[in-house]
Amino acid sequence: PPTSAPTFLHVADAVVYLNALPRDEVVAWAHQLDRAMLVKVLQSAELRRSVPLLRAIVQDGAADVLEGMDDDRLADRLARLPEADRDAALRLLQPATRASVQQLMDYPEDSAGRIMTTRFVQVPQDWSAGQALAYLRQPGHRHGTVYALYVADAEGRLRFVLSLRELVNADPEQPLAALWSGAAPITVHALADREDVTRLIRLYNFLALPVVDEAQRVIGIVTVDDVIDALMEEAQEDMNRFGGGEHMGAPYLETGFLAMVKKRGAWLALLFLGEMLTSSAMQHYELALEKAVVLAMFIPLIMSSGGNSGSQATSLLIRGLALGEVRLRDWWRVLGRELPTSLVLGAGLGAIGFARIVAWQHLGFYDYGEHYLLIAATIWASLVGIVCFGSSIGSMLPFVLQRLGLDPASASAPLVATLVDVLGLVIYFSVAAAVLGGALL
Amino acid sequence: PPTSAPTFLHVADAVVYLNALPRDEVVAWAHQLDRAMLVKVLQSAELRRSVPLLRAIVQDGAADVLEGMDDDRLADRLARLPEADRDAALRLLQPATRASVQQLMDYPEDSAGRIMTTRFVQVPQDWSAGQALAYLRQPGHRHGTVYALYVADAEGRLRFVLSLRELVNADPEQPLAALWSGAAPITVHALADREDVTRLIRLYNFLALPVVDEAQRVIGIVTVDDVIDALMEEAQEDMNRFGGGEHMGAPYLETGFLAMVKKRGAWLALLFLGEMLTSSAMQHYELALEKAVVLAMFIPLIMSSGGNSGSQATSLLIRGLALGEVRLRDWWRVLGRELPTSLVLGAGLGAIGFARIVAWQHLGFYDYGEHYLLIAATIWASLVGIVCFGSSIGSMLPFVLQRLGLDPASASAPLVATLVDVLGLVIYFSVAAAVLGGALL
Ligand SMILES: [Mg+2]
Ligand SMILES: [Mg+2]
Ligand SMILES: [Mg+2]
Ligand SMILES: [Mg+2]
Ligand SMILES: [Mg+2]
Ligand SMILES: [Mg+2]
Ligand SMILES: [Mg+2]
Ligand SMILES: [Mg+2]
Ligand SMILES: [Mg+2]
Ligand SMILES: [Mg+2]
Ligand SMILES: [Mg+2]
Ligand SMILES: [Mg+2]
Ligand SMILES: [Mg+2]
Repeated sequence: PPTSAPTFLHVADAVVYLNALPRDEVVAWAHQLDRAMLVKVLQSAELRRSVPLLRAIVQDGAADVLEGMDDDRLADRLARLPEADRDAALRLLQPATRASVQQLMDYPEDSAGRIMTTRFVQVPQDWSAGQALAYLRQPGHRHGTVYALYVADAEGRLRFVLSLRELVNADPEQPLAALWSGAAPITVHALADREDVTRLIRLYNFLALPVVDEAQRVIGIVTVDDVIDALMEEAQEDMNRFGGGEHMGAPYLETGFLAMVKKRGAWLALLFLGEMLTSSAMQHYELALEKAVVLAMFIPLIMSSGGNSGSQATSLLIRGLALGEVRLRDWWRVLGRELPTSLVLGAGLGAIGFARIVAWQHLGFYDYGEHYLLIAATIWASLVGIVCFGSSIGSMLPFVLQRLGLDPASASAPLVATLVDVLGLVIYFSVAAAVLGGALL
Repeated sequence: PPTSAPTFLHVADAVVYLNALPRDEVVAWAHQLDRAMLVKVLQSAELRRSVPLLRAIVQDGAADVLEGMDDDRLADRLARLPEADRDAALRLLQPATRASVQQLMDYPEDSAGRIMTTRFVQVPQDWSAGQALAYLRQPGHRHGTVYALYVADAEGRLRFVLSLRELVNADPEQPLAALWSGAAPITVHALADREDVTRLIRLYNFLALPVVDEAQRVIGIVTVDDVIDALMEEAQEDMNRFGGGEHMGAPYLETGFLAMVKKRGAWLALLFLGEMLTSSAMQHYELALEKAVVLAMFIPLIMSSGGNSGSQATSLLIRGLALGEVRLRDWWRVLGRELPTSLVLGAGLGAIGFARIVAWQHLGFYDYGEHYLLIAATIWASLVGIVCFGSSIGSMLPFVLQRLGLDPASASAPLVATLVDVLGLVIYFSVAAAVLGGALL
């Protein structure tokens, strides 16, 4: 254990320092931090080893550290603790904090309620601007960022949102109600998906969004820093799904061996089962293969081209749908763009393939036999067909998933490739039968 | 053209409305908006058809609309105009605005300078808190969000950053210099990559980050709303690259046909050339294939499993590296996790494959011949080898790219699949030669 603690001016510097320490030194170093800094460190979304740290704090019975944290972050951190530690932590809390934290932990994982903070400034609309300013200056309310002031009516319902700058500009004698612009406040419900929250914050450029209950009373706010963290996690989730797996929900190096195997194995096995259809398809074309083994040589090349063009199209549309740039009803416009695009792309790839066969034949690198031009034509036509087919499947799959109420990001590159592989083989052997029938087959 | 304009309270509502209009009606409707709303609409990052709108405004000679916009947004919008319109727009601007906009347009595409705004509140450190508040209340400075106050010394160098809440809390008589906490301000240079800006904002939970010149003078600030837009664009870029293409830089439905074909065709052609090596590899194993056509039937199944496990691993590490959860020097720890994980995954997939062959044989669905158990063993062993190999390539490729100074997100799923396909064939036929040698081969 260290004898002298480093001092940090910014909490972020302390977090970066702790994150870089070996696992077993983290707790010892954290003990050296003063209480205020320790609270800030535990508040930080970037802190990596929150679980051992929080367990040590609970075992020390350091209730003041837990009380010092925002209820939302505390709830999020406690949700990751083993149950025994979580219960011990809850027993340390004051009844009011405990109730609030337990309520937050009850919200579903990706909901607005789960990422909101219950610390916000609410003022009654019959106060004057000067009263509101004096309230902000009171010792108990002097700290933390003021994202906005939430002005409520006599029943506690949100009337409007006032920025600190508007409050500063106002005549101190003026009642707050007089500052209302007439616009209804933009709010979300606690059960709203956090992606709806991020969409609203992006669109309106808010610093915070109020979360209200059925009676329009503010129960918390989602702040822009938490929105950024949610956006990053959603992007990571989309990327992991698109890569053909599940989101780990934890940094790579912190994910346990069994969790890793389970989350990756499930998708791999599913894709494997789908891809087994390729073997069945090939068994069907066994005779053709035996007559012309040369056909087998182009299978990986042709199938990968279908998967690649499909994967490109899917990646364009997953994000387009996620950002709202493309909507469900645009599917036929998308298909109307994909078909001509993929026709050109397929013809281009086919030309390369055609040229390669002719060149290898003439240069003597390989002998495709007397029908080499027919083989080259088979490759060209198959590539046109498979690239068109891959792009269509790849671009439409996110729409289909969204239409079914599923996440378009589940349209992974491996899933598209698997779908294209099976039907791509059918296209390839059908083209071969048409072009080479009578000659080779 | 419409006769009565809808009225909007929030600019975001006007933007959503305009975005949903057919292309040719956008300009007519925009003309119906009052000037202040039109300026706000053009400021919005979510506006889709900025090019025709801005061209119409330039052709109308509506200099006041252009002057009303933030210089940073104006620069970004003008950069997308055809050169003739851009020059016409610049001629409409006042000399000071023109100089500022031209300077902003000169910053490289993804730099802090390109996304900063030149509107910020700077105050001298020898002012009192009351003076600073009075300055904020002046008619010319009453509008817009105050993200923070930038307190400068006599030479105009940034001393520290003060939040509006800290200013409000302060004794009005107190000089600003007395409010300094002692911490050096966190700043970036205008040429810094915007991803460094987003990293700092995420880490410190700032609402804005000051951009300084060589002499530590603030020349602009990057605000959190622009950071969110940058994060979204970077995530989209990573997703598109990972899908095996280039980022289009424009919404899907707004991208021109030729741009689409060019950006997608380049990668497809490159991957196609790489994948042509599979044909060469198969030519090498032509004799084995002729002796045992049954081997060909499992090629798509085995190769896709390598690509899928590689794609999973790559997606986990691209984001891990992008978020700083995994660092370059962690590569051996990652490999130390991928090898046992993929050993288990490969053995599992292999077991499914083995079971399928034995089952099909016994149920009489297909006759693999007398050596069917050896064939099943070949499939099992090949899957173990190829899944291990795919995961290793997939997990190490982002590290290699980062080490070479390239973007780890260029390690696309199709690229990994292509690399794995070629060597996967070698593994497969080598295993087959070892297991089936003397029996079938
Ligand atoms: Mg608390
Ligand atoms: Mg969560
Ligand atoms: Mg928070
Ligand atoms: Mg969601
Ligand atoms: Mg925005
Ligand atoms: Mg999502
Ligand atoms: Mg493939
Ligand atoms: Mg201006
Ligand atoms: Mg840009
Ligand atoms: Mg801006
Ligand atoms: Mg960059
Ligand atoms: Mg943060
Ligand atoms: Mg990037």
